[in-house]
Amino acid sequence: MDAASLERDLSIDEAWLFSSLEELARINRQPDGSCRRVALTDADRSGRDLLVSWMRELDLEVRVDQIGNILGTHQGRCAAKPIMIGSHIDTVSTGGSLDGAYGVIAGLEVIRTLKRHGVTPRCPLVVASFTNEEGVRFQPDMMGSLVYAGGLDLRTALHSEDRDGTVLGDELKRIGYAGECRCGALVPQAYIELHIEQGPILSREGIPLGAVENLQGISWQQITIHGEANHAGTTPMSARKDAAQAAAKVISFAQELALRMGASQLATVGSVHLDPGLINVVPRKAVLALDLRNPLEAHLQEAESRLVDFLEALSVKDGVLIEKKQLARYPPVTFDPEIVRTIEMSAGTLGKPIRRMTSGAGHDAQMMARICPAAMIFVPSVEGVSHNPAEHTEPEHLTLGANVLLRSVLALSEQGRGQ
Amino acid sequence: MDAASLERDLSIDEAWLFSSLEELARINRQPDGSCRRVALTDADRSGRDLLVSWMRELDLEVRVDQIGNILGTHQGRCAAKPIMIGSHIDTVSTGGSLDGAYGVIAGLEVIRTLKRHGVTPRCPLVVASFTNEEGVRFQPDMMGSLVYAGGLDLRTALHSEDRDGTVLGDELKRIGYAGECRCGALVPQAYIELHIEQGPILSREGIPLGAVENLQGISWQQITIHGEANHAGTTPMSARKDAAQAAAKVISFAQELALRMGASQLATVGSVHLDPGLINVVPRKAVLALDLRNPLEAHLQEAESRLVDFLEALSVKDGVLIEKKQLARYPPVTFDPEIVRTIEMSAGTLGKPIRRMTSGAGHDAQMMARICPAAMIFVPSVEGVSHNPAEHTEPEHLTLGANVLLRSVLALSEQGRGQ
Repeated sequence: MDAASLERDLSIDEAWLFSSLEELARINRQPDGSCRRVALTDADRSGRDLLVSWMRELDLEVRVDQIGNILGTHQGRCAAKPIMIGSHIDTVSTGGSLDGAYGVIAGLEVIRTLKRHGVTPRCPLVVASFTNEEGVRFQPDMMGSLVYAGGLDLRTALHSEDRDGTVLGDELKRIGYAGECRCGALVPQAYIELHIEQGPILSREGIPLGAVENLQGISWQQITIHGEANHAGTTPMSARKDAAQAAAKVISFAQELALRMGASQLATVGSVHLDPGLINVVPRKAVLALDLRNPLEAHLQEAESRLVDFLEALSVKDGVLIEKKQLARYPPVTFDPEIVRTIEMSAGTLGKPIRRMTSGAGHDAQMMARICPAAMIFVPSVEGVSHNPAEHTEPEHLTLGANVLLRSVLALSEQGRGQ
Repeated sequence: MDAASLERDLSIDEAWLFSSLEELARINRQPDGSCRRVALTDADRSGRDLLVSWMRELDLEVRVDQIGNILGTHQGRCAAKPIMIGSHIDTVSTGGSLDGAYGVIAGLEVIRTLKRHGVTPRCPLVVASFTNEEGVRFQPDMMGSLVYAGGLDLRTALHSEDRDGTVLGDELKRIGYAGECRCGALVPQAYIELHIEQGPILSREGIPLGAVENLQGISWQQITIHGEANHAGTTPMSARKDAAQAAAKVISFAQELALRMGASQLATVGSVHLDPGLINVVPRKAVLALDLRNPLEAHLQEAESRLVDFLEALSVKDGVLIEKKQLARYPPVTFDPEIVRTIEMSAGTLGKPIRRMTSGAGHDAQMMARICPAAMIFVPSVEGVSHNPAEHTEPEHLTLGANVLLRSVLALSEQGRGQ
């Protein structure tokens, strides 16, 4: 069977895809319908056990590495470097059923479809489920793939503590997923991740597929403004050093910065705390969190630099002291153009429109791109809702995404890159 | 002894003033030096007991009314309407030793000085200590004087509950200060209150005395902005309904409003809460507290009206829903010009400069002005610090303020208004 005929004939079994998504979602489902499988909890263990049972049903060779990543290998015709299909099955505290789980389960369904049709791919295929992508309880997020790609020391990751002082390594042992394989032992020839968009672009444009060609850089800053507390009824406006007024200017600046720099620059202030926070006291202190994103590193640096200039001028103008602390910094990632083209071609063979796009959110693919060619397939999430029980993707789009994944993996396998 | 010779000869005993302030401050003093005699607590009872013991030492006729106000009467030569010297002895949770207590203790010292010199004033003098001026545990603030002046129903006040559901009337009984006298039974011919400024004007201008001719109107508003929560990394700036951005515009508007309306308009945003308050989520909701003050009712209404216009325009422009709730509203108070002039003249007989001024903070005098001619004397508080253990007034200013109070009371008594 050649690649052309495979592309014509094969398609995934949507009944298994949907029922498996549902079976995983039922674990620790909350009264409001949300999924709660926070990494390293008992519910995460139950999800992992279910995933491993599916892998074993498919006769995959299951490996668990030292950070708890689960890798299921399906052997190919040659002893080539594998193609890896990855994502995660952990969720936020009130998550939906698709974020992460969709990519892992669709990966299994790709292998299931090949087996059902007696097709052995040229290269080995690995389905990877990375530990703690969400970073809810232990930070940083995308931890499993970051350690896998060598971006975070294993020991540091295992020593992470949650708010109660519980150590990640202990929890990993407790749930039975402290594996023995070395992290990053398998370096794939290509990494591909299927995910819901978690943004509104595909949904609003009515396009069923996205070929993700890059991922924004992220810069998180904490800005602390020190003013002077004063009585709101007795302190003349001219005598104030009002931390809230300075904070308002930072918030407004964030929006102006994004608008001035063009559509690819995003800027968000999602958190503000005033001290003492009383109606009749001019605030002494304001602490803001600023999220800057841009797909181009030079532009992200430009935004950061304009912020520094603005804060310096503001400090002088408002007579306040301003401190800035970097909370997180990930450079933008450019995905592999060949994989992106392969994804586009696969959509084309199905006669479906696809749009090149930038991922606004972080994904495991971002970390894997450090060690191998990588790219992502997006399907629409209705109105961009995610991290929410209302997260939803139309079933036809879920099926379509999995079929594009199937065809892309087959095409990559036949291309035999990195041999 | 005529009024002129009294003015030349009498002066208060600063040793008693200072030691009494210190004795009261020691009750439940905190490790950081702050005073904590929150109204209706055991510490408040101890403070009240001490005050009553001082009143009895002075042979005052002590009455406690139904809201717990304590009134000590010193009989005059005639059965005229009394002159009332009032303030409060409750404090905020981490207060200083002077706010309130200074005015009450100085009132006692005025009577003590008269007795020491064998001077009987023409009119009766009443020293009043009003219940719960600070409004920390039970709202509204200035409660005792508000009930006394008929601005709040006694029953409503007695039924106030704190956060734990404890009822004010029960606490008043528990501490032994649920009196039997009708609130407002004594309507004075004049009310005079000596207080630290709690603002920086006298301190910064180096003037030791203020004759308070009016008190600002206060309008407290809670502004709730409903936007739309979205992913900070995937939602284009143009597609956002960002409650924090709208909140920043309200904060900036508050300052612009005050600056446009001139020096007598104050506007403060002291409290902002964002929901969900996460760095990577465009806020769905912002709740702000806005404090507007102006000594002229028409101007305060103008500020409120401009706020309404601004919020309406903002709602349309930013695509957010905005709710506004009045949290408090006190109209400005104009104090009695004759009492103000009497205070100025008393300062003049001591050869001390005095400045007419507006009170930015609320005081019991504001409530008493509803039922009788009233005015206030201010002394500087260093840098305007108050509600803070660092609250401080130079001893010479404390002495001077009490002497101006003494001379003002004597002059008012001799004028014999309202007979």
